[in-house]
Amino acid sequence: MGKDADSLVRRFDVKRISGGGSTRIIDTVAAEEPLSIRIAYWLKDSQQTESLAVTMRTPGHDDELAAGLLLSEGIVLKREDIQEIHHLGTEPSNEVIVSLAPDVDVDTWRLSRNSFLGASCGVCGKRSREALASELPEYDIDEFEISADLVERLPEALSAWQSGFAQTGGLHAAALVNAQGEIEKAFEDIGRHNAMDKVLGWCLLNGRIPLSCSVVFLSSRSSFELVQKAAMAGVPVLATVGGPSSLAIEAARQFGLTLLGFVRGGRMNIYSGDWRINSN
Amino acid sequence: MGKDADSLVRRFDVKRISGGGSTRIIDTVAAEEPLSIRIAYWLKDSQQTESLAVTMRTPGHDDELAAGLLLSEGIVLKREDIQEIHHLGTEPSNEVIVSLAPDVDVDTWRLSRNSFLGASCGVCGKRSREALASELPEYDIDEFEISADLVERLPEALSAWQSGFAQTGGLHAAALVNAQGEIEKAFEDIGRHNAMDKVLGWCLLNGRIPLSCSVVFLSSRSSFELVQKAAMAGVPVLATVGGPSSLAIEAARQFGLTLLGFVRGGRMNIYSGDWRINSN
Repeated sequence: MGKDADSLVRRFDVKRISGGGSTRIIDTVAAEEPLSIRIAYWLKDSQQTESLAVTMRTPGHDDELAAGLLLSEGIVLKREDIQEIHHLGTEPSNEVIVSLAPDVDVDTWRLSRNSFLGASCGVCGKRSREALASELPEYDIDEFEISADLVERLPEALSAWQSGFAQTGGLHAAALVNAQGEIEKAFEDIGRHNAMDKVLGWCLLNGRIPLSCSVVFLSSRSSFELVQKAAMAGVPVLATVGGPSSLAIEAARQFGLTLLGFVRGGRMNIYSGDWRINSN
Repeated sequence: MGKDADSLVRRFDVKRISGGGSTRIIDTVAAEEPLSIRIAYWLKDSQQTESLAVTMRTPGHDDELAAGLLLSEGIVLKREDIQEIHHLGTEPSNEVIVSLAPDVDVDTWRLSRNSFLGASCGVCGKRSREALASELPEYDIDEFEISADLVERLPEALSAWQSGFAQTGGLHAAALVNAQGEIEKAFEDIGRHNAMDKVLGWCLLNGRIPLSCSVVFLSSRSSFELVQKAAMAGVPVLATVGGPSSLAIEAARQFGLTLLGFVRGGRMNIYSGDWRINSN
């Protein structure tokens, strides 16, 4: 296990009960720590800072996690929107501050977020999706297609890549997959939303947004929020080992995304956008 | 499938690819909708309202979910702290407002929450746990014990109870288990935190807090937040089918809770508080 994998897990002295007897073992579990994410932005000529979120995550790749969260939230859209990501305190640090470029308009974002989640919106699934859809970047994802054969091989490829999960049973993985069905990059985290944010943040920091010719493959189930994140990054195909929620399907259909679930054992269900998946 | 189970799932027309061919099927998936939770409280002689949270949840038992979330957050401690839970709009409603008793001190709660998650706390796992531990209610959970045999039978008992999971593969369950190892009440949700909140909220609304003689059993993994919720409700034993995170173990050891993981196949790991589990 290398240095990278070491940050993902912790070891504990544990009592195991089995077959009526008990033994002491050393158990390896997924690491969880809080991460405070702050933003620094320009208002007229002075720099302001504010707390954006505290998320429970598996340490490691915190820059990618923070960048991905800002992308998912619609605060940043491209590499140039982030000037610097700075860790506060000594390493390993649980506090990062993201400095935004002067032309990033945090006030407009805050207004739209407040109207989306606000006091008097009478929140319901349909209205939330409509509000969100009106703010999605207009990326051209219509041309992308991939064969079902390539998608079917992803669980095996991800298992080969994912060292942490086998050790703990507690880490989710998210992988960036290219048009040839190859895993380009993958991240693990106790939270599926964090794992997704790390992939999208890595792409943002490497100037890869929109991801118009990519699949994102998750070891978890899908949810409304995961579909929303995919849409914000211009991902045409979201595929998961587990199943989707009802709102994940409805959102994918509304946004024109391809949503695949239960991708395992040489099978898959296509919940939305079947024209992007070529089968025999 | 009864009326209750109907609210947990939705049906969609789906394309299934398997063995090179494709078919159309009707697939049943876990229902997900946003729930807006507002609180109404008294400040001097006027009633104020504010938004507490918007959570993505599986509809049904929203009163229990809201009450459980308020308990987990430390806003309410007992049945009498809640005057009324009111649904806004027409049923099925995605917006509830919880009216608090006049003596519930929301301002003090808000201050302590802000200092816990606040801007300058240099958030780290250890300090978060210390801040939280100082605010835990002082419940006597030292007397409770249960035999490992009874705990080992919980997965089978929960499977027999849990109708939704078998249908969708997407619902988590949380169960209240008494000292005889019997499931008294259980709830399902796409979110494991919501399922736990529904159990704790049901207990609160029925005057059952603290749960000093109970086990809470979850079909999911455990996390820091789930241990925190158990501690706020005075639960002595938290048992899960999946594994814990590192911070779940550290928090359970600090709070004096018994934390069990991988409770399945006639085995279990005891991560904390092994004196409450009687084995041969």
